[in-house]
Parts: sequence; C-alpha cells; structure tokens
Amino acid sequence: MIMNPLDAHQLPPIGALQSDLPAIAPNWFKYPVTAHPHYTDYGGIVWHGAYISWMEEARIECLRSIGIEFADLVALGCDLPVVDLALRYHHPVKMGMAAIVKTRMIEISGVRIHWDYQVESTDGQTLFVSARVTLVAVDREKGKILRQLPPIVKDALVKLSAS
Amino acid sequence: MIMNPLDAHQLPPIGALQSDLPAIAPNWFKYPVTAHPHYTDYGGIVWHGAYISWMEEARIECLRSIGIEFADLVALGCDLPVVDLALRYHHPVKMGMAAIVKTRMIEISGVRIHWDYQVESTDGQTLFVSARVTLVAVDREKGKILRQLPPIVKDALVKLSAS
Amino acid sequence: MIMNPLDAHQLPPIGALQSDLPAIAPNWFKYPVTAHPHYTDYGGIVWHGAYISWMEEARIECLRSIGIEFADLVALGCDLPVVDLALRYHHPVKMGMAAIVKTRMIEISGVRIHWDYQVESTDGQTLFVSARVTLVAVDREKGKILRQLPPIVKDALVKLSAS
Amino acid sequence: MIMNPLDAHQLPPIGALQSDLPAIAPNWFKYPVTAHPHYTDYGGIVWHGAYISWMEEARIECLRSIGIEFADLVALGCDLPVVDLALRYHHPVKMGMAAIVKTRMIEISGVRIHWDYQVESTDGQTLFVSARVTLVAVDREKGKILRQLPPIVKDALVKLSAS
Repeated sequence: MIMNPLDAHQLPPIGALQSDLPAIAPNWFKYPVTAHPHYTDYGGIVWHGAYISWMEEARIECLRSIGIEFADLVALGCDLPVVDLALRYHHPVKMGMAAIVKTRMIEISGVRIHWDYQVESTDGQTLFVSARVTLVAVDREKGKILRQLPPIVKDALVKLSAS
Repeated sequence: MIMNPLDAHQLPPIGALQSDLPAIAPNWFKYPVTAHPHYTDYGGIVWHGAYISWMEEARIECLRSIGIEFADLVALGCDLPVVDLALRYHHPVKMGMAAIVKTRMIEISGVRIHWDYQVESTDGQTLFVSARVTLVAVDREKGKILRQLPPIVKDALVKLSAS
Repeated sequence: MIMNPLDAHQLPPIGALQSDLPAIAPNWFKYPVTAHPHYTDYGGIVWHGAYISWMEEARIECLRSIGIEFADLVALGCDLPVVDLALRYHHPVKMGMAAIVKTRMIEISGVRIHWDYQVESTDGQTLFVSARVTLVAVDREKGKILRQLPPIVKDALVKLSAS
Repeated sequence: MIMNPLDAHQLPPIGALQSDLPAIAPNWFKYPVTAHPHYTDYGGIVWHGAYISWMEEARIECLRSIGIEFADLVALGCDLPVVDLALRYHHPVKMGMAAIVKTRMIEISGVRIHWDYQVESTDGQTLFVSARVTLVAVDREKGKILRQLPPIVKDALVKLSAS
C-alpha cells in the first residue's frame, strides 16, 4: 500500500545490511509472526519500531533452540544488550499478514555477537525488512563488558558451528 | 548499571552514525523525555526499542516547530515512512532519568530526508544514543515514492535553511 | 518476586471480573505466550500494560479459529473497537516464563461482544491475570455503532454456539 | 471517525468508573499528551492499550508534583504495582490530536491507592476515556504486600490532603 514492489528498485542497494562474513549457523532460524492490530499504525501497516520486538523474540527463540535460555543467562549475571542496530525497510507488512522473521548469527568477534535478519513473506517472495543487530556480553553486577563469552554461550556456539 | 562510562572507550568509534554533510538546520531541535516505567526492561533501563518512539516524537515536534503538522500532511495524501534506521547505544538511560533527544535534518536528497540524533543527559555530559533515520516522501493513495517533496514541506525547508 | 502466591489471599475476590452469563463457546480458546524481554519492566516482570497486547492477539486468533479474519472484517468496513476493559493482576509473569492466555466469548448483547480472559501458567496451577473486554461493532465509514452484527460474524457465532 | 459524539449516548452510563468516595486531592493533576504516530493503530486513532502508558506517566508525574520520586521509592525497596485496572472508551483520540490526562487519588485504604482518570480534549469539551487504577504497596525484596505505606508516601499524602 505504501511502498510497492517497484519502489524497491528506487531504494539504494541493501548490501550494507548484509554481512560478507561467514555465518556461524549456515541455516536461518525462522520465527513466524502476525501483524496483529497493536503492531499497526495509522497507515494500516506494521509501525517501523515494532519490528524491533519481533527481532528480539526471534533472537531469544534462536538462542533457546541451541540450548541457551536467555532468562537463565541474566539470572547468572550476564546480559547481552544491543549496542548497534540497523534496519532497512523494503515493503510494508499490512495488518493481518503473516510473515517470517529469519535470523542467524553471522560472526562473533570476542564478546560481540552479530545477527543478520530478513523479514519475509511466508512464501519467501517478498523481502519486507533486512536488519543487523550487534550484542555485547556484559557483567550485570559490575556494569562492564566481559572479557570473554560465558562458557554456556561459548559451548553452545561451538556445537552450533560444528553441526 | 549495565554499561558504565568507561565502557564507552571499549566500543568502536561512533563516526558511522554522524554525517559529514552540512546540516540544513544548523541548530539541534531539543525534545525532553523521561524514562517512565513502561519504557524500562528487566535491567531497570530503557528498552533498546523504546528509543524509536522518542525519536519519532522528536521528529514530529521538530516538523511542527517549522510549521509542518504531520497529521495534516498525511490527510493531504503524503506520508513520510522511515526507510532506514540505525542506532548506536553508548550508555543506558536508567528508570526515572530525564534526557534530551536532540535531532536535526542533515541533508535532503530529492524526496529523501535524513535526520541525525543524539540522546543526551540533561547536563549534556553523557551521550546515551546516537542515531540516523531516513524518511522518504510517498503518495499514500498510489503507494509510490513521490518525484518531489510536497510544496508545504519544501517551503518550510527553504525557510529553515535561510534562517 | 513482587507478588507471591500468598499475597493472592490478601487481594479482594476476583468474582467481579468473571461473568455469570452463559458462555457462547463453552471451551476456552488457548493462546500461548512468552515473557520476552520487551514485555518486561524494571521489576523483571511483564509490564501491566503488555497484557493488553496478548489479550488482543488471543482474541484475533480466536476469531480466526471460527472463520473470521479480523483484517477482512475491517476491509469490509466493520470495526470491533474495545469500549470496556478491566484487568485484575493476581501474580506477576516473570521474564522468560511461558503462559497461556485463555479467552472465550461469554455473551453477545446486540452488537456488543463480551470476552472473558484468564492468563495462566502452562501447568494451569497459577492464575496471573483475569480480565474482561467488551467490543462493539462499528461502521467504519459512518463512525457509528451498527444496528446488528455483520452477517459473517453472526453466522460464525451461530455455528459456534451450536457446536 | 470511529465513534462520533452521538454514539456516546448509545453507550451505557460511565458511572461505574467514577468513585463516590472523597478525593484526597480535590484538584485534578493534568498531564498533556499528543497522539504521535506510534500510539496509533490501523484506524488512525490511538490504540486502546496505549492509554495505559499515558496513565502511568500522569501518575508518576503527579507523585513527583507532591515530592515522591517513583524511581527513588523503588530504589528504597518499595514498589507500587497495579493490581486493578479499568478503562471505558467514549471517543477516539485521532492521530496528531493533543489531549489532557487528568488524574487524582480518590481514596487510600490501607496500602491500596486508588486513582481516577479522565482523558479529555484540550478544551475540556470531549471526554475520550475514563478510567480507574488501583495500586498496592509491596516490599520488593520479600515480594509481599506491605502492612503500611512507606513514611515518604504517607507524609506526602498527609500534606496533600491538608492543603
């Protein structure tokens, strides 16, 4: 309704939001979502900030799928706050539409974890949003960035990249 | 609590989110906000996605300050959806804290409008978040990007850059 | 963490939020949710306003389960805005917890539809929130309350109460 | 647009959300808000759950106006979670509109604090929403309801009712 398929060609290339680095997990983790009314704005489409919630949910469920319960990590004193966030909006998701939030970890540099995102139509034919998020591992009590990832995270990632 | 002042030095430089382009409006528009409970997350700090709401409010109020009522623009058939969004998180805003969302238009290329942001402490000593947003002017009915900005927007911007 | 099981006894009885009227659908519709970080507040629990989103999602999915696509209804010119809302908070849902939002239509009086809610733990042992919502059918164009429910809604409800 | 002024007459009387009890503070505390895009839904009006954020903000600012910093109260180990919430929607607030959230404490029974709300147009001619919220004072560490309000709260309230 607001940005039609043709308009995508008028936008700059989306390369900047895609990493050239090797993905740790070669496969995308897929998280289904639906554009319920509370996500929409006056345009009848998902409000641009609402994707951040979907991306967070996909990330938490992806971590769970490899054995990391985020709430447990926080209880153990480690947090993974977002330090960088970038989104590019290609086509709007209209009210009532279903979509798939695809995510994968694309690189880990020290205690920083990068995630790539693609929000797509359920048939995979339309790319709604591409995004990139960087997390950093932080000691909750000291309020300082950790020198290395907690063992529970590191072990899960080693298993993941070996699979 | 999560990222203390020293940690900022451990983060990469924030240059990428600052434009080298001349600002249309040389002065920052300042929008005061407060970290009310509903903005916070389990860490007692403002949830990373909540800044998007503050940034949108600051943008709308900045437009109003130069004579553009956003709701009127939409009623006239023009929308200004966000097509690109990037945030860098430097320090957390804790529950109850006041902050200033500073914004300015930094460049207009055709129908694209870029905005720079700095979310700061009220004394200007702490930079919490820096950000960049790109809007594009769209014909609501046709769902297509406009060839040029609507006269009401163009005129306001001309006046602004001449002031 | 904030309100423990014993505290429930200190609260007034919750009868007020439960209807004595016969349920149209005798069975609860169950909608699973998870307390992801963006739903939490400084207390590490789901922010009290976040339940409204969950309740809306459960309602939309319940309607879908009986053949009513809410977005289609809106496209046809009928809206079902909330006109009354009441929630009672019994126990908090903590970050990372899974929960079940149970809902059922309990009565229809003219163009008003009442819904009962219970947000429970997955084992059904803890009642987190009980709630009541009233919708009214509205003609979107005229901005007026409809004299009767749209046929698509009425037919689905007749089938439901006969099942 | 959705519910016009005449429709209000078709709704049941709103008495249920108004207390017959004496107000502690005889005057309403007034908190101005604006219907920015992120508060709106597909109908171009404020989404029904968004009022909860406005009501919380008005409450926090009302407490601040009588010398109670909510964040300080939490830091001292006392929380004031919402245990009951009821809203009645009379007319929608459309995108871009300004409104006033009026609130006052209407009664305190032990450690329970009741608040009345009226969300009105800036000229006071249109009542958008009426609401009622009940808070209870809780010991954050023990997770138990307090036997009495913390001195800082009690003292502020005594001063308030004497003024």
